[in-house]
Amino acid sequence: MKSLFCFRTVVLASLLLASGVATHADEGMWTFDNPPVKQLESRYHFTPTQEWLDHVRLSCVRLNDGGSGSFVSPDGLLLTNHHVARGQLQKNSTKEHDYVRDGFYAATRDQEMKSPDLEVDVLESMENVTAQVQAALKDVKDPQQELTVRRALIAKIERESLEKTGLRSDVVTLYQGGEYWLYRYKKYTDLRIVFAPEQQIAFFGGDPDNFTYPRYDLDMAFFRVYENGKPIHTPNYLKWNPNGAVDQDLVFVVGNPGSTQRLDTVAQLLNWRDDMLPNILTWLRHRREVLKAYSAQDPEQARQAGSLIFGLENSIKALDGEYKALNQPSIFDKKEAEEAEFRKLVAANPEWEQKYAPAWDQIAAAEREAATRKNYFFHRLDSTLEQLAVTIVQYVAEVKKPDGERLPGYHEAQLDSLRLRLFSPAPIYPAMEKAQMEGALELGLAKLGKDDEIIKTVLDGRTPHEAAEQLIDGTKLADPAVRKKLVEGGEQAVAESTDPLIVLARKLDPTLRAYQKWNEDHVESVIDRAGEALGKARFLAYGKSSYPDATFTLRLSYGKVDGYPMNGTIAPPKTTFFGLYDRAASFDYKGPFVLPARYADGRSKLDLSTPLDFVTTNDIIGGNSGSPVIDRKGELVGLIFDGNIESLAGSYVYDGATNRAVAVHSAGMTEALRKLYNAGSLLRELLGQ
Amino acid sequence: MKSLFCFRTVVLASLLLASGVATHADEGMWTFDNPPVKQLESRYHFTPTQEWLDHVRLSCVRLNDGGSGSFVSPDGLLLTNHHVARGQLQKNSTKEHDYVRDGFYAATRDQEMKSPDLEVDVLESMENVTAQVQAALKDVKDPQQELTVRRALIAKIERESLEKTGLRSDVVTLYQGGEYWLYRYKKYTDLRIVFAPEQQIAFFGGDPDNFTYPRYDLDMAFFRVYENGKPIHTPNYLKWNPNGAVDQDLVFVVGNPGSTQRLDTVAQLLNWRDDMLPNILTWLRHRREVLKAYSAQDPEQARQAGSLIFGLENSIKALDGEYKALNQPSIFDKKEAEEAEFRKLVAANPEWEQKYAPAWDQIAAAEREAATRKNYFFHRLDSTLEQLAVTIVQYVAEVKKPDGERLPGYHEAQLDSLRLRLFSPAPIYPAMEKAQMEGALELGLAKLGKDDEIIKTVLDGRTPHEAAEQLIDGTKLADPAVRKKLVEGGEQAVAESTDPLIVLARKLDPTLRAYQKWNEDHVESVIDRAGEALGKARFLAYGKSSYPDATFTLRLSYGKVDGYPMNGTIAPPKTTFFGLYDRAASFDYKGPFVLPARYADGRSKLDLSTPLDFVTTNDIIGGNSGSPVIDRKGELVGLIFDGNIESLAGSYVYDGATNRAVAVHSAGMTEALRKLYNAGSLLRELLGQ
Repeated sequence: MKSLFCFRTVVLASLLLASGVATHADEGMWTFDNPPVKQLESRYHFTPTQEWLDHVRLSCVRLNDGGSGSFVSPDGLLLTNHHVARGQLQKNSTKEHDYVRDGFYAATRDQEMKSPDLEVDVLESMENVTAQVQAALKDVKDPQQELTVRRALIAKIERESLEKTGLRSDVVTLYQGGEYWLYRYKKYTDLRIVFAPEQQIAFFGGDPDNFTYPRYDLDMAFFRVYENGKPIHTPNYLKWNPNGAVDQDLVFVVGNPGSTQRLDTVAQLLNWRDDMLPNILTWLRHRREVLKAYSAQDPEQARQAGSLIFGLENSIKALDGEYKALNQPSIFDKKEAEEAEFRKLVAANPEWEQKYAPAWDQIAAAEREAATRKNYFFHRLDSTLEQLAVTIVQYVAEVKKPDGERLPGYHEAQLDSLRLRLFSPAPIYPAMEKAQMEGALELGLAKLGKDDEIIKTVLDGRTPHEAAEQLIDGTKLADPAVRKKLVEGGEQAVAESTDPLIVLARKLDPTLRAYQKWNEDHVESVIDRAGEALGKARFLAYGKSSYPDATFTLRLSYGKVDGYPMNGTIAPPKTTFFGLYDRAASFDYKGPFVLPARYADGRSKLDLSTPLDFVTTNDIIGGNSGSPVIDRKGELVGLIFDGNIESLAGSYVYDGATNRAVAVHSAGMTEALRKLYNAGSLLRELLGQ
Repeated sequence: MKSLFCFRTVVLASLLLASGVATHADEGMWTFDNPPVKQLESRYHFTPTQEWLDHVRLSCVRLNDGGSGSFVSPDGLLLTNHHVARGQLQKNSTKEHDYVRDGFYAATRDQEMKSPDLEVDVLESMENVTAQVQAALKDVKDPQQELTVRRALIAKIERESLEKTGLRSDVVTLYQGGEYWLYRYKKYTDLRIVFAPEQQIAFFGGDPDNFTYPRYDLDMAFFRVYENGKPIHTPNYLKWNPNGAVDQDLVFVVGNPGSTQRLDTVAQLLNWRDDMLPNILTWLRHRREVLKAYSAQDPEQARQAGSLIFGLENSIKALDGEYKALNQPSIFDKKEAEEAEFRKLVAANPEWEQKYAPAWDQIAAAEREAATRKNYFFHRLDSTLEQLAVTIVQYVAEVKKPDGERLPGYHEAQLDSLRLRLFSPAPIYPAMEKAQMEGALELGLAKLGKDDEIIKTVLDGRTPHEAAEQLIDGTKLADPAVRKKLVEGGEQAVAESTDPLIVLARKLDPTLRAYQKWNEDHVESVIDRAGEALGKARFLAYGKSSYPDATFTLRLSYGKVDGYPMNGTIAPPKTTFFGLYDRAASFDYKGPFVLPARYADGRSKLDLSTPLDFVTTNDIIGGNSGSPVIDRKGELVGLIFDGNIESLAGSYVYDGATNRAVAVHSAGMTEALRKLYNAGSLLRELLGQ
């Protein structure tokens, strides 16, 4: 559940500027309406037919946990990463059965394990609604009003589409308002786990090896998608290629990159680098410490916190890499040079200069305004229960308003997904909630002081420890039935509730709304409008020969299997099982380099020269986890699970010399399933036998 | 044979300043008269006894090919690197027997293969002669005169010592004249090759993996030292430990680091970085291209050029790494900060300021003078035959002068070693000589122009191609007997010779001598004297708690087996045979990653988890190749053969966080000898059976 406070982060992170800058090498996260046909033909002598494009699009999915996946059999079998599935494995696990640690395999369908709150979307169609949106905004002068009008119109388009088709309907903003598209998804919410390996092989090498290559991870998992109690029939699926790809092969990645900032202005990047990123990193690191202390007290507590810590460490490493990238003169200089060139092109045309040039300064001014409240970032309480309480309080108020006037997240078309999360049966651990809330309040107190409105309201004269204890001990919101009852009881039930978290949420709500309004008025609306102007200027100056910043919607990227210069030498295009055993032995099987017993004992069963992981030049980013690697024939040759350390600059620039996507090799997956997991029925299904 | 033109490079590179700056971590290349006892006791709870120190000193050797080695049995068995032995293997090889490519093993002593021109020195004793030298220089005012007086005195000390003891006698300048020591060596010139593996496993990974880690090289070779036709008896030898060291073990490296510039002034480093290094790199790269073109014409030519190209690529990679290091603000800033601190300490004392502070500016002025002739670097002709001719012409003149007045290299005490090289029977390939000389003349022409004195004299109206062809085709100097006859015939024979190279050398000699004199007068003498002043200032300011810059003489370094942060993750403390097979397979056995047939076929015989290479924090540099890694007990646990990429900055600063020495693990050497080479007699000798 995203709290309102990270909304601005999301907005900021997804600020887009259309780029017509000539794209080099294998760059680009291409929308399916605008595939990189010219590049594919000239570099790889490959022409994707409409059939080919449709086939791969319909074979791929988005997982709302924040990743991607693909169908790999006609019976709804879905391949994704272990780390994307991990949350669901965690939620199914108990003290007695730790599916994260030990893995899981359903040899027959009736053993397949239901996932509490996973939604999967298949992109059925895309419709360009740019004209409609831009027409409505044409005569609106005021940025704040434009924000309102745009939201209302988007909500209307989504609602009407949902009513008409029954499909999940999202209007996607591309090129920062240069284009608006209506994406319709077939949505599935009954996913059952078929196979997951041990965490220790899915994430071999742990945090040290995360975001690096060479790598030796089997980061895979299989689900089956059900509907009405039966596996769905998936005529569009990727045929499993057990041999995989070789060095220099043309390959594609189809998935959902989350967000990039390649088209941010220099002012935006400066604010991000100097104000936002440091705060985010401080927060993430603090949370990690809190949860590590929690984990140290008890093995069961460690199990509970495992996935969260995993996610935090992943974010820390990624954002720290991004922070380092932005502090590299070579990268920042590049962004400044790009902006200078763009400004020059605009200035050369008096009409463009007059219409669009003010946008840069408007954005810079809005960023300065935003920076005055940068520490409001520390209003977060890091508590699932508190977030649920706030959502409930707002929900019952928002649903009474006309759709177009609601806060983001509460529009008609979004309610299904919201309710799925709101009423999820996933367990919530009170002791962990207390530890996290207490830690958040301590950090908030340190950063904002005791007279801060939010801090003061939450603490209400108590210490962070006392406040957290009383709120968590007193609340009943951990029970989804209680939450459901409140929501069904509407505003009255909520107003009458004595649940301490609901009481607190009622108190906080006006302030939260005020802060959000201030942000919309002073920052978001200004940046949206100015960004849209720059988006138009970009189309005029450069034409539409490029791709938009990532938006956690379906993209196609192309590239080849290829090593790269690393550490004074060359990283190879693939690794083998030999390397897994080498790395484990070279650390004497300690720490994150321990081998699961299955691998230690089963070594002689394997052909160790089988490829395990490999790297490609495909342009991807977080969100692409679980994406399939597809060859020319449209077959599955690999499974994306990471990027190398050099790819962390990819939020800002793509450098084809060293930026690599990291994938599990289909030969490695096949070898492991066959020789170590004896997953006969799964293999037969994959191989179409 | 070092030409006169690289003399200044050697001088520059060995300019030393005593440092009393507190040394951190496991830093330091310690002389045996000043071992790091305090550090060893406090960090490792180890106290080296005089017995222990003497034992390891007398077990270790210097190879005049430019490396180190150690005795590993009581019968003169010597361990060093394959790449140190390679030159000798190359010189023994023919078109029919390529010992570099195929390796060599003498199962019995009579098969052991003699090396044409390898000298090995054992450091028998060290005597401090500082007082004697400084007394002679006390009243000499003039820097040029000081140079002359110092040289004459040093030559005298060496000559008298040689006459008295029969031992090779070198006066070593430490702390840039802060100290002078007389080192006496027992010298051996009859070395016979016992074992060398295939080049492809000694240097697995080739140029890409050179100077990097993780690594999978078996860079080892064994010689036996003979005297009077019999193996020498070596009561001081290192006992072979077949299990080797483990992570965090205390280890020592005893060997001959060649040169460092840690105590250079900022002015010296700037000249080195901006004038010298670029020229050297240009030259090396040009030579590599010339030799690669030569190699491409014919497999036999490729064999001839192999070792040279190997050496060039090694130097290019190392110097390029050093160049990059000096262009890193973090490193250069560090050197500037060190100098600023030193200047401050000196300035705080009026007497020191008056006596020593002018030295910095004097050095800077000399560097500026040197820079005016930086392109004289390109006077070199890259021809072994031409260098032999110049040596002969100068030799017959110099030996007629009193010892103290001779050019460096021609002093009485140096003549044995000089003659060994001058009359070496190692083959010289005329076609390769022509190619190299032609290439050198083309580069010289481009850099200096056709009116340059040396270029004009050599070309004499011809093109580079014509000149090279006529000179090499016309000379008979490839025959050592011819060279010997000329030298024995003295100045008259040389003056009468019509050999075109001798004729050329006679013409060039006055100019070469003039350039050398100019360099001595304007640069070397000034820097020597000013450097000596700074050396004294350093002792005064910091005391003698540190170590001198490297001087290609015996040093002790200490450290531990330890991984380090690399590539966003951790490099492990060791690698295993698993890793060798992984790296080979991951590149599909292509290029520098091909596996020798013995390893491809014999994989199942090996325990693949056996350690192959490992890293330690020991402070080493080029020249340490072949040094033993020794444990607390004085046993041999490894064999140094490289440094990681982060160690290339070690010429200038030691960074214990990432600087690592790279060694072959004794367990890996034992496993290979036993299981793949069936080297039964060699193993029995090593294990004392």
